[in-house]
Amino acid sequence: MQSLRVALGDRAYDIHIGTGLLNDVNLILPFLKKAGVAIVTNETVAPLYLERLAGGLRNAGVAVTEIVLPDGEAYKDWSTLNRVFDVLLERHAERSTTLIALGGGVIGDLTGFAAACYQRGVPFIQVPTTLLSQVDSSVGGKTAINHPRGKNMIGAFYQPRLVLADLDTLDTLPDRELAAGLAEVIKYGLIRDAEFLAWLEANMTLLLARDKTALAYAVHRSCEHKAEVVAADEKEAGERALLNLGHTFGHAIETGLGYGAWLHGEAVAVGTLMAAELSARLGWLDRAAVERVEALFRIAGLPVRGPDLGGDRYLELMSHDKKVQDGRLRLVLLAQLGRAVLTDQAAEADIRAAIAARVG
Amino acid sequence: MQSLRVALGDRAYDIHIGTGLLNDVNLILPFLKKAGVAIVTNETVAPLYLERLAGGLRNAGVAVTEIVLPDGEAYKDWSTLNRVFDVLLERHAERSTTLIALGGGVIGDLTGFAAACYQRGVPFIQVPTTLLSQVDSSVGGKTAINHPRGKNMIGAFYQPRLVLADLDTLDTLPDRELAAGLAEVIKYGLIRDAEFLAWLEANMTLLLARDKTALAYAVHRSCEHKAEVVAADEKEAGERALLNLGHTFGHAIETGLGYGAWLHGEAVAVGTLMAAELSARLGWLDRAAVERVEALFRIAGLPVRGPDLGGDRYLELMSHDKKVQDGRLRLVLLAQLGRAVLTDQAAEADIRAAIAARVG
Repeated sequence: MQSLRVALGDRAYDIHIGTGLLNDVNLILPFLKKAGVAIVTNETVAPLYLERLAGGLRNAGVAVTEIVLPDGEAYKDWSTLNRVFDVLLERHAERSTTLIALGGGVIGDLTGFAAACYQRGVPFIQVPTTLLSQVDSSVGGKTAINHPRGKNMIGAFYQPRLVLADLDTLDTLPDRELAAGLAEVIKYGLIRDAEFLAWLEANMTLLLARDKTALAYAVHRSCEHKAEVVAADEKEAGERALLNLGHTFGHAIETGLGYGAWLHGEAVAVGTLMAAELSARLGWLDRAAVERVEALFRIAGLPVRGPDLGGDRYLELMSHDKKVQDGRLRLVLLAQLGRAVLTDQAAEADIRAAIAARVG
Repeated sequence: MQSLRVALGDRAYDIHIGTGLLNDVNLILPFLKKAGVAIVTNETVAPLYLERLAGGLRNAGVAVTEIVLPDGEAYKDWSTLNRVFDVLLERHAERSTTLIALGGGVIGDLTGFAAACYQRGVPFIQVPTTLLSQVDSSVGGKTAINHPRGKNMIGAFYQPRLVLADLDTLDTLPDRELAAGLAEVIKYGLIRDAEFLAWLEANMTLLLARDKTALAYAVHRSCEHKAEVVAADEKEAGERALLNLGHTFGHAIETGLGYGAWLHGEAVAVGTLMAAELSARLGWLDRAAVERVEALFRIAGLPVRGPDLGGDRYLELMSHDKKVQDGRLRLVLLAQLGRAVLTDQAAEADIRAAIAARVG
């Protein structure tokens, strides 16, 4: 087991990465109060891992409530969130009841937001079971649900008390979801770590074969980056926005197609290529660099072209982005491979051209 | 104009109390960003005060979005909150758009929660227009909506940037709502200021006649108490819970009758008398003290007996309270007039008897 700490003062917490963590209740027990826990998970993850976690806690004398939600981004909405509140209230969950998110990004985001709001805030623990959530969404306290008009529009910055990334859970992850997680791993290389980018190019085959040592390195390195950025800029006043490389374009794809049609990581991959195309138009990247990014996404099994929603629709959807400031769209682009910048200087014509180059 | 500050470090803010404040946009302008404001109010307040505030801001060049909601506690729910989100997204409100709550406690709580959640948090300003919201709910950052199973169950601690209590808005307040506000004013006397309690007894007639000097003193003294308690215990880990004198009983009345049947302050008055009865049963208050409290509520025009929901129903409703810990109901009681204590030692039989003494 490897551990690292997210340095956020009195809200600092540990991330543990390793195998067999779900069986080790001693990692969780120190954080629990007498009121017990409510484990929130989904119909896909529950049959695989719920008993492993819940049984261990019950054997240790912890009162456990299980909340099993339908699976998928389409359920990251108010009505599903309200099901969580209904059960918590029915079971008389208290301010000291700890919520545990057992699942991928949707479960983590929704459960975190439930924890932020239930009785104005209860403790919560992230147990991410997908690569995407282990390397990205479980760390840093961004919680949210979607709104029909925009992804993650309703949410809170609310930090977990602990993150347990059990690599064993990746054994059952569908290939498509593994690839989607790799999109966020590659992102760290692109925005701030050229060396890691090269390592990923050299080791992508091992990662796709789910080699535990390679996965452990990739998850740990990704979490190090995430923890460093979050500690420096928790509320996304500056540097943290760079983590959203490809996300403004990607959210437009997700919202435009309806939540769940594409996986988040798939949309981010294409969005990142749109950002790379735009960076090339601004003269920051050469074609070889764009092609290098495309090649890596291809090897990872990710899409490299987006749906043709039309330029107007892309721009309309992107205008709802949380990074809009003073009416100007701010985009994360690549100054070079391994260095991202936030800019509001891209001309609309160039944005349209970058999108057009990557659709259809 | 009198001013005081809520000392919360980098989230500290001022409360201004006085007349003519709605006309003085210079109090608000320094807090606004280019993205402008969205004023959230209700159908009762809008015709009275919306133009006074919105017009002034527009004249100063601020982009103003107006969101007018139906009036009443029954609308402090998710679907009304979602109307706010709908408009904000429709108008492309940004992270730097400032929400202004213009209204009473329902508008303040709901708008504050909208500000806490929209894009994971935007700035907000409280402009309370009822006595209750001026002396209590607008200060301290408790925001929430109701859930069918419990009042204020879904919410956040989220502080405003500024509170503007314009006493002129009390001119149009219905008598019943003025009385409801006085319940919370009396509360401060009961829990921590015997001298203020005596002042209220001596000046209740002036307050009911809406004498501006008396009201200014009552609002200012109340806000001083609230600010002091909140600065010491923002998240209600201890002392802040004392502000909930009468609220656990009162919430049972509000939820039991359906939101809106009784005003919050009315339910708090009866709840406070139930707490006083219970305190008497524990030997802390004598009958004369209980009668003194009852007399003050009576003069203020507040109810002194609650609906007969049955003891079981009261206890069931109270068991959802946010102050439940380790399965035990914690209640705010009166050790004496002017000193409240939080205790989980009251026996169920005594709680039932105290309720029975005050219903029907």
